[in-house]
This record gives sequence, structure tokens and C-alpha cells, in this order.
Amino acid sequence: MIKNDRFLKALARQPVDKTPVWLMRQAGRYLPEYRKIRSQAGDFLTLCKTPELACEVTLQPLERFDLDAAIIFSDILTIPDAMHLGLYFEPGEGPKFKQPTCDAASIKKLGIPDPEDDLGYVMQAIRHTKQALAGKVPLIGFAGSPWTIGCYMVEGGPSKTFATIKGMLYTDPAILHQLLQKLADSISLYLQAQIAAGADVIMLFDTWGGILTPQAYQAFSLHYMQQILQSLPAHIPTIVFTKNGGLWLEAIANIGSNAVGLDWTIDVGDARQRIGHQVALQGNLDPAIMQATPEVITQHVEQILASYGSGNGHIFNLGHGITPNIQPENVAVLVDAVHEKSQQYHQCKQHDQAQ
Amino acid sequence: MIKNDRFLKALARQPVDKTPVWLMRQAGRYLPEYRKIRSQAGDFLTLCKTPELACEVTLQPLERFDLDAAIIFSDILTIPDAMHLGLYFEPGEGPKFKQPTCDAASIKKLGIPDPEDDLGYVMQAIRHTKQALAGKVPLIGFAGSPWTIGCYMVEGGPSKTFATIKGMLYTDPAILHQLLQKLADSISLYLQAQIAAGADVIMLFDTWGGILTPQAYQAFSLHYMQQILQSLPAHIPTIVFTKNGGLWLEAIANIGSNAVGLDWTIDVGDARQRIGHQVALQGNLDPAIMQATPEVITQHVEQILASYGSGNGHIFNLGHGITPNIQPENVAVLVDAVHEKSQQYHQCKQHDQAQ
Repeated sequence: MIKNDRFLKALARQPVDKTPVWLMRQAGRYLPEYRKIRSQAGDFLTLCKTPELACEVTLQPLERFDLDAAIIFSDILTIPDAMHLGLYFEPGEGPKFKQPTCDAASIKKLGIPDPEDDLGYVMQAIRHTKQALAGKVPLIGFAGSPWTIGCYMVEGGPSKTFATIKGMLYTDPAILHQLLQKLADSISLYLQAQIAAGADVIMLFDTWGGILTPQAYQAFSLHYMQQILQSLPAHIPTIVFTKNGGLWLEAIANIGSNAVGLDWTIDVGDARQRIGHQVALQGNLDPAIMQATPEVITQHVEQILASYGSGNGHIFNLGHGITPNIQPENVAVLVDAVHEKSQQYHQCKQHDQAQ
Repeated sequence: MIKNDRFLKALARQPVDKTPVWLMRQAGRYLPEYRKIRSQAGDFLTLCKTPELACEVTLQPLERFDLDAAIIFSDILTIPDAMHLGLYFEPGEGPKFKQPTCDAASIKKLGIPDPEDDLGYVMQAIRHTKQALAGKVPLIGFAGSPWTIGCYMVEGGPSKTFATIKGMLYTDPAILHQLLQKLADSISLYLQAQIAAGADVIMLFDTWGGILTPQAYQAFSLHYMQQILQSLPAHIPTIVFTKNGGLWLEAIANIGSNAVGLDWTIDVGDARQRIGHQVALQGNLDPAIMQATPEVITQHVEQILASYGSGNGHIFNLGHGITPNIQPENVAVLVDAVHEKSQQYHQCKQHDQAQ
């Protein structure tokens, strides 16, 4: 059914001809055609909530680049938006909520959104996109982790110290667990619906897990991500990504995902030694390298491929989302370099197997 | 000469009766007596530049709490300020520079500040404080790392993605090395002068090293910190702290400092297993825990002490600076809990040695 199944094979740690590659935020502001649609939509949330447009921007990077996966255009804050907390985006400041969720009463009031009734625009965008893709590449559905979504809900917006949610964690953990449980239940339903609508792979983004102590990370982030993974059908491959989670890879690899996403602070070869026997690895070019020349980009691609080495189970990606200041031509350089320079590592493997 | 030498002994990994404790930013806005002096001074920089007042606020936390060290009240950006880049503080936004240092020409123009001529106010503050302390506890002098100071100079202020300095790193590394070498030379002279003025211990703060790849961290941060350490007299104990550097502890422990500072994302027992045979460890309570009740603070102190276990070489601290929203009473709880609860780990050791 899927014509280019390199990404699915790598997730299953099966042999491939070339290392598959896609980019976090590959449908985004670095593309002029994205900025055009975005300005037509008026604002970011309207773009997310208009399935035809969300489908169109999801497909844009695939028109330009030889990417091995599509990821549905959406946002990790669709769930609290569906909980009626008044999500809005202040230009240059990131997401904010008119009603932060920072006490027992406001947490008690939160409902579990019904995916088709309250978040139907996401499912519609997935259905449109699946149809338009016509099996060209797999489509990734996604959600934020309960902890990460909770950070935005409790703080009411971006934060440097996350003092409010951490205060709650250390003074009233039971209340925070109630919030995270509601989020985990909501996310499970949401991702099940994304799968029913056609998502081939699911990714959990834990942007803020890395601000926790090892014990708090286990109890307040990893635990709930594990619950979510367990609620999903076993045949759907999953990827878990905790930014700044490099110290905790063994724990992350144990919660049942097929792949673990890596940011750029860890050497992918070291990560493979630690957890490569259990999971596939996704990453991990520093997004800042995309500002450099084609030669420098290619050189860093080669370093990462060499560090991972021969064999299966690597999905190339950035260590975080691509930033708006990147030239689209450099993405072509990256994608083509991954495909071209990775062949030697897969040929070697096939040669070894033939012997 | 120093009456309470618990901190110096722990830095040398020698036996102590109790685990020594001090707090990053212990002279700071959480103290009402600090806020009073600060409002008299007018602004933060004037306070730094008035030796009598800097001395007074350095001593304030020692009046209240049974701390085992003092740290001179100053800022990591005194050096670029002495380079005439127009340092100023925008309320709620952090430090900024009127002239960012983001090209070859502006880097070439930078001079190496003379510590006594250009930064004499720091040396005077240290001399005053040493006299006032009268050997009560050791006095820590400090500087930012070249990479961290460079981040502020190149970005011109706080940044989320550090796109400008990382762009320089990947497109024009030679220029960035020129900047970092000038900073390393300046910092070496600055710290030598702090030692001559009376600083007993030196700490390097690498707040932003953790945003780099492992290779870039080695080349653009660790390398220059090692140069600085090598320029200091061998008898002066040193501490190196890279926030989010937990993945690179082995490399950090190899550059010749006596102690390595830890943020709260790593278990102190794991860190001890990895590098405790080489260096003392400083840390690592999550500063957010200081918002909690005395019982919760004490419980987390006990966890960290137990995780480090019996024996020498632990200096208790937070994993980052104390925040302005903390009740001073909670600092007393912390300091006293460290001293009280740590005795068992040192008694055991002495008992073992006696056998």
C-alpha cells in the first residue's frame, strides 16, 4: 500500500537501501509557499483548523524534496484548545492561554475532548492528506506529551523556569497527576482517532521533559507517555522524543515505542550503543547547521551517518524543528546527502548478510 | 587561616564532619535585605560596581544561614562590559548589549581588559570581603565561560535558539575562535587577579555549553575552559559547571578542575560512579524544590545525600541559581538539613577508616 516504505522498514529495524529522512516542522515557515497559504488563512490556528489548507501545507515539502515521510500539519496544543482554555499566539512570544490551568478547581473542570466532535478538523486533514498522498510515503500523526502540554496549560504560556508547574509538582503532586491523567486519556483517544483516520506512524513530542529531575521525569512524563503507547494498536509504529532526554535513554527505550528521537546533544553512535538493540533511532543534526553552506551540511550528514554506522534502524532527522531562517535549497542538500551518502552503510550490511 | 574549611576539604576530597553547602546566587533577590541595598544602589550594575555594597550583599546570606562558603557578588558579563559593549539590563528580559559582537571587524576591535584598571571594582570588592570575612569561610571568585559570555555578546542578549552564534560556529568557525580566545585570555587574567585579591576558590559558569553538539562543546567551550584552568595557580581549587552537561561528564572531569558542578537532571550517585574517582561533585537540588514545604525540602536533601552515599567529595548546592520567589526561611531549612542529615555518611566513613 505504501510505495516508499523506507521509513516503516527503518522503524522496524529492517534492511533498507538508503537511510530514510524527514524533518521535524518540514511543513513550515522556511517555505515561501507555506508563508503564502498561512497569510491567506490569516493566522496559524485557522490554518490548523482548515483541513484543506492543512493538507496542502503538509504536502508542500514533499513536492520539493525527496522526503521519506509526511507529518500532518497541526500543533501540540490542539488538545487544550479543544478544552476551551483560550489558546492564542502572541507574535514573537509563542503560545498563550487566556485561562491557565493552575489549581485543583480548574483541573477538575477540564473535560476529555471527543476526537471527532472537538478535534474533527485534525481527522479530516489526515483523511484528505492520506487520499492526496495515495500511498507515496507514510503519514505521521502526533501529539505533545502530557507533561509538555501541561507545562503550557499551567504556566499559561512559554516560561524560562516553569516555576508554576514545578511548584505544583513539589507541593501538590496529586493535583498535577490529575491533570496529567486527563491529558493522557485525551491524547490516547486523540491518537487512536488519528490512526483510524489514516495515520501510519505516531510520534509523541516531549519538548519539556528535559527540565525535570530523573525521578520526576519518570513519574510525571515518561509514565504517562507509556500509558498512551499502551493504548495504541500494536501494529502502528511509534516514536518518542524527549528534548534534552539524552541522560535517560535507557528508561525512554523501555516504554514500548519502536523508535527514540534524539536531539543533537548526544552522539548517535553512543545512543546506538546504549539502546540500539531495543529501538530504532531518529535524529540528530543540529538545526543550526542548516544555516551553513552545502559543503558543511553534507560533512555533518556524513559524520552522523558514520557515527551510526552500518546496519538498520536509523531514521535521519534534525535534533529539533527546522527554523524559519533556513534556505529551502539547503533542505534539498540535506535530503539528497542522506540518501546518497548512506548507501554504503546499507550495501555493506546486505553484503555481510549475503556472505 | 580559614576557620570553616569544610568546603576546601570537600573540594580536595578529604574527610569532613558534615557535607558543606552553599547556593548559587545565595546573595540575591530572594533576600529582603538584598532588595533594600539594590534599590539604594539604583540598578544591578551600579551595585556590582560599588565595592562596599557588593561586599555587603556578599555577606548578607552568611548572617542568616550557616553556609560553608561565600561567593563574591558580581556578574558573568563584567568582562564584555569592560570591553565597552554597552551592557544594560532590560527589566524582565535579562542582559543586553548596545553593540553586539557578531562580525570579524567587531571582534578584531575588542581589547583584553586589564583586571585592575578596567575591573578594579571586582578586586576591591574581593579585598573588602576577605577582610570582613576574617577567615570565617572561603570566598569564591568566578567568571562565565568564554562560550557563555560569547553567546551574550554575539546574540546581543538572551536567545532561544542562539541562531547567530551557531551560524558563526558553522559558517565561520575561525572568527568565533578569535572571539573565544580573546575571552579566554581576558578571563584568565581576570581570575588570576581575583586570586591575587584574595579569592580562595574559582568557579567557571558555563550556562550555555549545553546547547552544543558533543564535538562543538569540546572545541568551542571545554577547550577554552581548560586553557583558563591551566593559567591559574595550582594550589587554588576550581569548579567547572556546564548546565545540561550531564552527558559529557567524563570530558568535563578531564580538564583539570577539582570539582564538577551538576544540574538537577542527573542523579548525583550516577555522576559519582562516572567521575567521582577524579573530581569532587557539587550539586544538585532542583531550585524549584525550594518553593515547597520544609518537609519536602528535607526529603529531597536526604535523597541527594543518600544517592551520593558515604565518603568524601560532595559539596551540596542547587542545580542552578536560587530564584527570587523563594522564602528565606526555606534556605535555612535546606542548609540545616544538609548539615544534620549528612553526618551519618561522614561518621560511617570515619568509622570505616578506624577499623
